[in-house]
Amino acid sequence: MWHYQPPLRDIRFVTEELLNLSAQWAALPAYAELDVATARQVIGEAGKFAAEVLAPLNASGDLEGCTWRDGKVTTPRGYREAYQAFVAAGWPALACDPSVGGQGLPHALNAVLHEMLNSANHAWNMYPGLLHGAYECLLTHATPELKKEYLGKIVSGEWLSTMCLTEAHAGSDLGLLKTRAEPQPDGSFRIRGTKIFISGGEHDLTDNIVHTVLARIVDAPSGTKGISLFLLPKFLPGGERNTLRCDGIEKKMGIKGSATCVMSFDGATGWLVGEPNRGLAAMFAMMNAARLHVGLQGVGHSESAYQNSLRYALERTQMRAPKRPANRVNEAADPIALHPAMRHNLLRQRALLEGGRLLAYETSHLLDVAEQHPDAAARATAHDQVSLLTPVIKAFLTDNGFAAAVAAQQVFGGHGYVHDFGAEQCVRDSRISMIYEGTNEIQAIDLLVRKVLPDGGAKLGALITRLENELPANDAAARAKEVLSDWRRATQQIVQAAAADIELPYRVANDYLRLAGLALLAQGWARAEAVAAQSSSHFHAAKCETARYYNDFVLPEAGLCLARLRAGHAPLPHLQAPSS
Amino acid sequence: MWHYQPPLRDIRFVTEELLNLSAQWAALPAYAELDVATARQVIGEAGKFAAEVLAPLNASGDLEGCTWRDGKVTTPRGYREAYQAFVAAGWPALACDPSVGGQGLPHALNAVLHEMLNSANHAWNMYPGLLHGAYECLLTHATPELKKEYLGKIVSGEWLSTMCLTEAHAGSDLGLLKTRAEPQPDGSFRIRGTKIFISGGEHDLTDNIVHTVLARIVDAPSGTKGISLFLLPKFLPGGERNTLRCDGIEKKMGIKGSATCVMSFDGATGWLVGEPNRGLAAMFAMMNAARLHVGLQGVGHSESAYQNSLRYALERTQMRAPKRPANRVNEAADPIALHPAMRHNLLRQRALLEGGRLLAYETSHLLDVAEQHPDAAARATAHDQVSLLTPVIKAFLTDNGFAAAVAAQQVFGGHGYVHDFGAEQCVRDSRISMIYEGTNEIQAIDLLVRKVLPDGGAKLGALITRLENELPANDAAARAKEVLSDWRRATQQIVQAAAADIELPYRVANDYLRLAGLALLAQGWARAEAVAAQSSSHFHAAKCETARYYNDFVLPEAGLCLARLRAGHAPLPHLQAPSS
Repeated sequence: MWHYQPPLRDIRFVTEELLNLSAQWAALPAYAELDVATARQVIGEAGKFAAEVLAPLNASGDLEGCTWRDGKVTTPRGYREAYQAFVAAGWPALACDPSVGGQGLPHALNAVLHEMLNSANHAWNMYPGLLHGAYECLLTHATPELKKEYLGKIVSGEWLSTMCLTEAHAGSDLGLLKTRAEPQPDGSFRIRGTKIFISGGEHDLTDNIVHTVLARIVDAPSGTKGISLFLLPKFLPGGERNTLRCDGIEKKMGIKGSATCVMSFDGATGWLVGEPNRGLAAMFAMMNAARLHVGLQGVGHSESAYQNSLRYALERTQMRAPKRPANRVNEAADPIALHPAMRHNLLRQRALLEGGRLLAYETSHLLDVAEQHPDAAARATAHDQVSLLTPVIKAFLTDNGFAAAVAAQQVFGGHGYVHDFGAEQCVRDSRISMIYEGTNEIQAIDLLVRKVLPDGGAKLGALITRLENELPANDAAARAKEVLSDWRRATQQIVQAAAADIELPYRVANDYLRLAGLALLAQGWARAEAVAAQSSSHFHAAKCETARYYNDFVLPEAGLCLARLRAGHAPLPHLQAPSS
Repeated sequence: MWHYQPPLRDIRFVTEELLNLSAQWAALPAYAELDVATARQVIGEAGKFAAEVLAPLNASGDLEGCTWRDGKVTTPRGYREAYQAFVAAGWPALACDPSVGGQGLPHALNAVLHEMLNSANHAWNMYPGLLHGAYECLLTHATPELKKEYLGKIVSGEWLSTMCLTEAHAGSDLGLLKTRAEPQPDGSFRIRGTKIFISGGEHDLTDNIVHTVLARIVDAPSGTKGISLFLLPKFLPGGERNTLRCDGIEKKMGIKGSATCVMSFDGATGWLVGEPNRGLAAMFAMMNAARLHVGLQGVGHSESAYQNSLRYALERTQMRAPKRPANRVNEAADPIALHPAMRHNLLRQRALLEGGRLLAYETSHLLDVAEQHPDAAARATAHDQVSLLTPVIKAFLTDNGFAAAVAAQQVFGGHGYVHDFGAEQCVRDSRISMIYEGTNEIQAIDLLVRKVLPDGGAKLGALITRLENELPANDAAARAKEVLSDWRRATQQIVQAAAADIELPYRVANDYLRLAGLALLAQGWARAEAVAAQSSSHFHAAKCETARYYNDFVLPEAGLCLARLRAGHAPLPHLQAPSS
């Protein structure tokens, strides 16, 4: 059966041995007093909550799903109680500002928390996982009145929030959205329209729900420049029910405990957040944090896939391994963990999981630097790098999370296909992270077209230089250096060729992002190996083995990306409807 | 919504233009009178059945699933009627021998039929899809009495059959199985034991069900050399209920319309098929056909994934394409089929789908040659090649089928994750084919360890020589020749090194099989391009484009396989339980 055991030792390897976060925090006044012991305690408690409260609801929530009846949504048994415990423990406020009731802890710790929540129960974590979006939007853009009414309750978790963006005809392309907002004499707006795919649009976890909604003010320009952001509560400040309702929930492949709602707004009352027609900018400002969080779903699924398939492989005996350990010569069959195909499967999972964890935590820390460093130049540099790394983390780590789940399922064999063992749920749940918050193809365009090319690759070059400078002196570093150079060179070639071929960056974006992800992990594993090589413990020896596995069996995919990038310089055929 | 339109034009391209099957059949006495028109008619009718009878039951069967109550299984609405129509049209008998009531048509046509059945409704096709296994077992090994009682009804489809192999502790490793058979004075046996994962173990499609069961005769040797094969009907010849029952069905990720049964045999009456203790050999003799059929599930899913995602991509408009066609300059958004990321997605699907179809049909034809060619040497050569190609087809094409489903789902974006659009069902259904009938890892070991290495790669060398000799003179052929040489060289290196390192072939088997698949498709695409280049039609121009896409963007993965094969010559770490 699927379990979750918080990987505390592996997490400490990253937060303490590799990143030495407490020393880093010393440079950030907001976190200067945060020490190793406190961080460990927070992580330990988060792990306990994930393992003891959330993990037991993962399979049952999937079986039960949500139910909709007359506009009301019932979440699976235990979800509400788990949410109350989550609020009582103060977890929603972890990374929020103390001025509005937050605990003021760093994003890096919040990343650890959310990796574990996602490992234990992705569907449940969809509800509080959206908090940060509404929180940042309101904190940055809302009027003092709106902040006063809503921010404290969002930070405490008393009320949950949503992000209402998608419409049936407007998914990746929000410029097409049609929901309309009519100004009222009292300064409020009446919102009319239908939104789909709204996570947590309706549920029974909190008494009120705060919707953030993108809509077009009457007479606003068409396209993305005429979109504004509004706040609409389910219950108005006077306690009256707002004229918005949930018209149904989707039957989905996975995350079945998360209610994905069709929301209709029938002249519902809302208030503008930020400037008129600047709603998309306000929404995108919080996308870095949101997309980092989706990347952490990838890490979360990778961890649960890895630890469960490893456990099964160590227990399940089938056939003799080609090389039998001396103590098993007379057995009828060996643990499948001894079979080379399963070792490849597990080592690959592990190399991508642990490399991805390092990348996600380190980038979360960079987000802390971008927000909290006393030096403006340091903040700006960190901001630029977070901005470049975010789409890689979102796409690369969620692709890897799904691949890990599929690999884990293969370890379970036929048992991986039946519900009881949990592997197939992991596959179904992890799949969504490649699609929402901007599909992984959109991430690749975001990286190359919106972030790398506009300055001719200058900021990317600075990032690669920083990565090179941090390399230790070992064999893995030499390999990492090569692939970082390949990445730099590929960037320059695209910058040059794109001037005459506007479609080129779009043709190569996916392979470019994949190359970036592989290069980033190569750099991370080189550093991890250097740190681990200082100890002779079994734990550290395994890290060195995994670093070598990454270089020998995973990193060669960079060559494939480069071959496809080269081929991508030529035109690409178009597709027609099939002949009959 | 998910539809199925039989890809008749593409099928004709393979059966007529590429393979020229009717000319090939002329050399096989059993099929010498089969002409193009008849073959077209059979394929056309099969396509109609798949599209009009089966496809409409695909989504509803998934939603409804099977239900179990007191040992009885009810299949989804419409399944029984569809099965009756299938039997009435004579489809079960298509490739069976005329001497036992079959239609005596070639495997190559049966492959086309099953590709289409699998495209339309994989879950439903699980019931008749197993027919061939029991049919071949009985035809080759059963006593005249058993044949007389059962074979005709299996061929006509009046009774369905099962293959009862797996036990809870014996999946890939059948040597561990514990089901026991006690000889009776009348020559029958009493079978006791529990089998799991039995497809169609119980259902309401036919009045009787014929189980083929692996069990160990009392006092038989342990391991694989003490396993015998038995036939056990649900109802005994006198009409009495046999003492076997279905104790439950699995809740699975997909193919929910297919009942996956726990079967318990409580002193049930059965008869030996073939020699005592030679059951595994009898079972494996029919594995080539069974595994080819699983490969065709991969092709079937690839086809439905491709045609549905292409249709959606041509209809769905989101954002402006970087290069806009002249006739769309003033639109708000373009079909996503114009966006380069989607073109890559669809072209890759297409290259693997159409290449896989050629490989599967051609190998099915080779199976016909192996069985029907008048010349014994030609039969033997064909048999050897089928034997080598079968594990590649099973593993490579089902890996590709699942990947195609996942890619198609990505084209649908958020709509790909909800049930209504059908993409997510395709992902769930296609996943099983990588696991059952021997996991894809087992196929890789079958290919390299059981089939390539025992004669030092001699038969494989002969296959590669034949493939080289069939290459046309074009650019694609030059690339194909290179990768065929790489395959040959990698084989020789493994043969040499394996002498001193018995674990080596197990370490490299997966990458070796993947390389083989890529090389086989490169050879196929080179031939397809040569044929297509003779015409200037749009249809044929698209084939040439796809051949080039295969070479530029898919085939480079062979380089990755080679890099991993090289790395695989070194030892591979072992895994331990995680540190806490």
